[in-house]
Amino acid sequence: MTPLPTVPLSAVPLSAVTITDEFWAPRREVVRTRTIPQQYRQLAEAGHLDALRLDWKPGDDKEPHIFWESDVAKWIEAASNTLVHHPDPHLDAALDQVIGLVAGAQGDDGYLNVHFTVVKPGLRFTDLRDAHELYCLGHLVEAAVAHHRATGKTSLLDIVLGYLELVRREFGEGGVAAHGYDGHEEIELALVKLFDLTGDRTHLDLAAQFVNDRGTKPFFFEDEARRRGDDGFFARYFPRRPEEAERHRQYSQSHLPVREQDEAVGHSVRAMYLYSAMADLAARLGDDGLRAACERLWTSVVDRKMYVTGGIGADASIEGFRGDHELPNDASYNETCASIGLVMWAWRMGLLTGEGRYGDVAELALHNTVLAGASSDGTHYFYGNPMQSDGEHARQEWFGVACCPPNYARLLTSLESYAFATGGDEVVVTLFIGGEVRVDLDEGPVRLSVETRYPWEGQVRVRVEDAARFTLAVRVPAWANGATATVNGERIDVDALVDRGYLRVHRDWAAGDELVLELPLVAERLWADPAVSADTGLVAVRRGPLVLCAEMRGDEPAAGSLVLGRDALFTDGWDDELDVAVVEATAMADHWPEDADGLYRVTGPDQVAIQVRLVPYFAWGNRGPSSMRVWLREGPSSRA
Amino acid sequence: MTPLPTVPLSAVPLSAVTITDEFWAPRREVVRTRTIPQQYRQLAEAGHLDALRLDWKPGDDKEPHIFWESDVAKWIEAASNTLVHHPDPHLDAALDQVIGLVAGAQGDDGYLNVHFTVVKPGLRFTDLRDAHELYCLGHLVEAAVAHHRATGKTSLLDIVLGYLELVRREFGEGGVAAHGYDGHEEIELALVKLFDLTGDRTHLDLAAQFVNDRGTKPFFFEDEARRRGDDGFFARYFPRRPEEAERHRQYSQSHLPVREQDEAVGHSVRAMYLYSAMADLAARLGDDGLRAACERLWTSVVDRKMYVTGGIGADASIEGFRGDHELPNDASYNETCASIGLVMWAWRMGLLTGEGRYGDVAELALHNTVLAGASSDGTHYFYGNPMQSDGEHARQEWFGVACCPPNYARLLTSLESYAFATGGDEVVVTLFIGGEVRVDLDEGPVRLSVETRYPWEGQVRVRVEDAARFTLAVRVPAWANGATATVNGERIDVDALVDRGYLRVHRDWAAGDELVLELPLVAERLWADPAVSADTGLVAVRRGPLVLCAEMRGDEPAAGSLVLGRDALFTDGWDDELDVAVVEATAMADHWPEDADGLYRVTGPDQVAIQVRLVPYFAWGNRGPSSMRVWLREGPSSRA
Repeated sequence: MTPLPTVPLSAVPLSAVTITDEFWAPRREVVRTRTIPQQYRQLAEAGHLDALRLDWKPGDDKEPHIFWESDVAKWIEAASNTLVHHPDPHLDAALDQVIGLVAGAQGDDGYLNVHFTVVKPGLRFTDLRDAHELYCLGHLVEAAVAHHRATGKTSLLDIVLGYLELVRREFGEGGVAAHGYDGHEEIELALVKLFDLTGDRTHLDLAAQFVNDRGTKPFFFEDEARRRGDDGFFARYFPRRPEEAERHRQYSQSHLPVREQDEAVGHSVRAMYLYSAMADLAARLGDDGLRAACERLWTSVVDRKMYVTGGIGADASIEGFRGDHELPNDASYNETCASIGLVMWAWRMGLLTGEGRYGDVAELALHNTVLAGASSDGTHYFYGNPMQSDGEHARQEWFGVACCPPNYARLLTSLESYAFATGGDEVVVTLFIGGEVRVDLDEGPVRLSVETRYPWEGQVRVRVEDAARFTLAVRVPAWANGATATVNGERIDVDALVDRGYLRVHRDWAAGDELVLELPLVAERLWADPAVSADTGLVAVRRGPLVLCAEMRGDEPAAGSLVLGRDALFTDGWDDELDVAVVEATAMADHWPEDADGLYRVTGPDQVAIQVRLVPYFAWGNRGPSSMRVWLREGPSSRA
Repeated sequence: MTPLPTVPLSAVPLSAVTITDEFWAPRREVVRTRTIPQQYRQLAEAGHLDALRLDWKPGDDKEPHIFWESDVAKWIEAASNTLVHHPDPHLDAALDQVIGLVAGAQGDDGYLNVHFTVVKPGLRFTDLRDAHELYCLGHLVEAAVAHHRATGKTSLLDIVLGYLELVRREFGEGGVAAHGYDGHEEIELALVKLFDLTGDRTHLDLAAQFVNDRGTKPFFFEDEARRRGDDGFFARYFPRRPEEAERHRQYSQSHLPVREQDEAVGHSVRAMYLYSAMADLAARLGDDGLRAACERLWTSVVDRKMYVTGGIGADASIEGFRGDHELPNDASYNETCASIGLVMWAWRMGLLTGEGRYGDVAELALHNTVLAGASSDGTHYFYGNPMQSDGEHARQEWFGVACCPPNYARLLTSLESYAFATGGDEVVVTLFIGGEVRVDLDEGPVRLSVETRYPWEGQVRVRVEDAARFTLAVRVPAWANGATATVNGERIDVDALVDRGYLRVHRDWAAGDELVLELPLVAERLWADPAVSADTGLVAVRRGPLVLCAEMRGDEPAAGSLVLGRDALFTDGWDDELDVAVVEATAMADHWPEDADGLYRVTGPDQVAIQVRLVPYFAWGNRGPSSMRVWLREGPSSRA
């Protein structure tokens, strides 16, 4: 056995990776050339940008909303990310102009929130549970870090540093919001990013303060409401909140100190952002209590509350988690942002632990519910990612609450960081994305290049470009039974060399050495734990990281009427229209005799065999109205 | 062909019918001896009775709720009904005492509503949309009619007649609520009952006024809210009502003039009570516009929005209808009161049209979702009647909103009226209930006696006890393919004699003549219209009027895991514990191999054959926690 790596691992900056992958590069180019410009137009039209001029007056339309800054910030972050590899003077100038607007909205004391400046002056930091002020600041901080890393400029960084000085005072002893924290987590992980950039420990301390104060008694949000004398910004959306206090504490994960939390509850995006910050702090502070809580919460999500697609947050009424195994298919909310958050958290858990199982989940969510978040042309979005649709679900150009589209953009434009990591003498390949990475090991820089047709094909070819002694760690997904590998053409023993989810090969690598991993990409059936009563009698199909779905259109039988026989064989295929790999199979479909009528009838359907083409979940909904099912009815046979 | 009867038909009073039926008589005896006393205790404990003393003060507990009078009134109605055939001095005295409390709560001007007297004085008739004042009055009127018919007393009748004088003024031109009507329909049908009792046309006119004003522009409820300056009693339950005006007009069926309504929408109990009043008025006024609207709305409910059990109102968030064919099984609300309302409306449609198809639906709802409303011991109740349960659904002793239990009691205690009707020279047998009925035809009184073991067996034996020339009309349910009949032992041609759902035999009947109808009571499969996507791949089992369900307990496989083969044979049986007829069949059940684990796994279940016993829907939930399904997965075969 090779020695275990020193954990935690470190992330690799965007600039150290060049993605040339034939699956991802075109999709990222769509984001850069279509999504980011379209989102700028949408933000401008919706009023987000003009709002920063602070000239809104009561009675005007387009009242600045409490979380508008976050949408702008995520756009800045995504746009900045693209500049790392694609210098673009026009986009650079557009960023300067938007950041200029942000600067203009900042008060002399550093405060920066348009809603509380022009709509509710005098009420800043009095409704932390609902009003998203620090959430907005968190996104501005993430944007500032990305903008600085991409351009070297400090324009946005200076803004957020000024604001943070005010925040540190107001949330410190004697401040207006002492012991407070935000209802929507985000600032915490952003402060860790700022610490990573600046090395300024006060940012890490403030993140830890927010995380540690959360959920302690007396409950801050309830005290705050009493002081304020009303039930807050969301009172009308949550009329029963006063009676349902515990449920609403859970909504914002403030029901228990975070170290005592065992079950993922409440709003799923909030949960993911909190858990991400907890993993960040556990790694940077060596905090075993936070790490243990993260590991328990991970089990709660991944073993009991996650859809097979990597979607989380089934309950639309709270955009959040239901109980264990409560995963209904006809009411599966699965916000795109929640799956993005799951990727963010999984990535951090992988860095914290060095374990590949986190990468498995990051990959699952990324390739399915995240990628489904935008249309193939990059300009229409899913807010929810249902497990089934009977034609009612379609991507939209924008949303009144527009969190998901720019979140999608910033994730796709920062994919570099999610693919690779490094720690000790180890170079870690977590996602299989063609391109080049350069990492700095103790003994010097090492470059790797990756070639693959993943996720369509299972071969991943990693070439070492610089001679060095190090451990090359390549994730072997848990689903990849029978994976094989060679080094310079010679077979190595994968089973013996896989340690905690990574194939780890330690040796003196010469320039030109190649490790080739062969993952068996075959379509296979998945069944759910029978505790998931919604999936009883149903079967899903996965091919590698991609979950497939039946998408039926026009005169085809409804997807819900298909029955996949246990004996049905799968054939790999390609769909030219969608430009994706598909799986073909014979299924049975209901066929109704002519004389059957009435709402309830004594004549049932016959079954006829039809060929169906299962498409990757991420690709559904790109060809007009359709019926779609991830989980298909299962029968003993697909033969008539 | 015999001549068609003159419609509308007339109802038969409770006193004209004696029920001795072996299915119904014991169930009605449970209501009389257990349910009614238990409900009295519950009303006393909850504070409904003490509230009538008007001594509640702000700060006291048990704040009188806006619809408490309606619960008391329904109890009075049910208790009064039992006195018709079971004189009971103690119950009579208890009724006098409760009515005395009601009398004490009435103001000098006739007004009677505890909530608006002690909680919100000065605000009477200002929140008709939400505050249920006329709904409560309607139930008091129905109770007064029942009490008077049972006892001859006028104590409650005098109370409501006094209140109605005030209502007539306040809802007339110049009154505080001119052009107003109640958000929860009920007063309308109650006023028709009062007209039927008293012959006083002003009651019928007021009912017509409320029905005709409903849904006209300007929308009364919105004007009323503007005048009041707030969004009403339910504002906190419906925070989005101002933005969702049309949906909330539909909630109370006030979105369109009633004659223009085509689709059953909104709160389903409200809808049923409105449609009942529309049918009443159509019959009494010969109003073809109302009749046509009723027939369109009937089609909307029965052909597109009704569960196979007769349950209606799938959407828990509004206790009401979803869209056409939107009949999800895992979110099937189906309030007991809504099915009671469906029986009430169906009965009135039958009287209005003389058609048997309405009786078919009354019978369906009565034998399934209504009868399920109470436990076999008569003291625990279902508010909702779901199509499936995984152990979470159980009857309760009482509810904060206690509309269903006393509604169940008043329906069961007035079953006499639903069974028979008369019109012209016709005596109509709609429900098959053993007992005696006496009707007055033009040429004199006629008595019939009915013997049957329905719904367990299909023979219905109707004996004429008095010689007379008349048409005996006995409903032949639409499901009864192959029904046969004899008169005095001689076969008659059912197909030729069935006209609009009734077997109509016109002749000189002699005392002792017998018409025997043989309905083929066989278990058969039902499938739903494929437009009901929730039922795709599923099958239900019906035996005559009873819909069956799988109820699995203890270590048995979950009901949702059962697969009923298309080739499975049904065997009639009897369950001694439940004392009901059952249907037995071989089904397949999922059996998981030991090595299958994980939330999602690559090993699926095998199937094993098991014997299952399907029980009547009404009888489920009487033996502790269970899993239950009405719709079962269907497979090609039940053979291993």
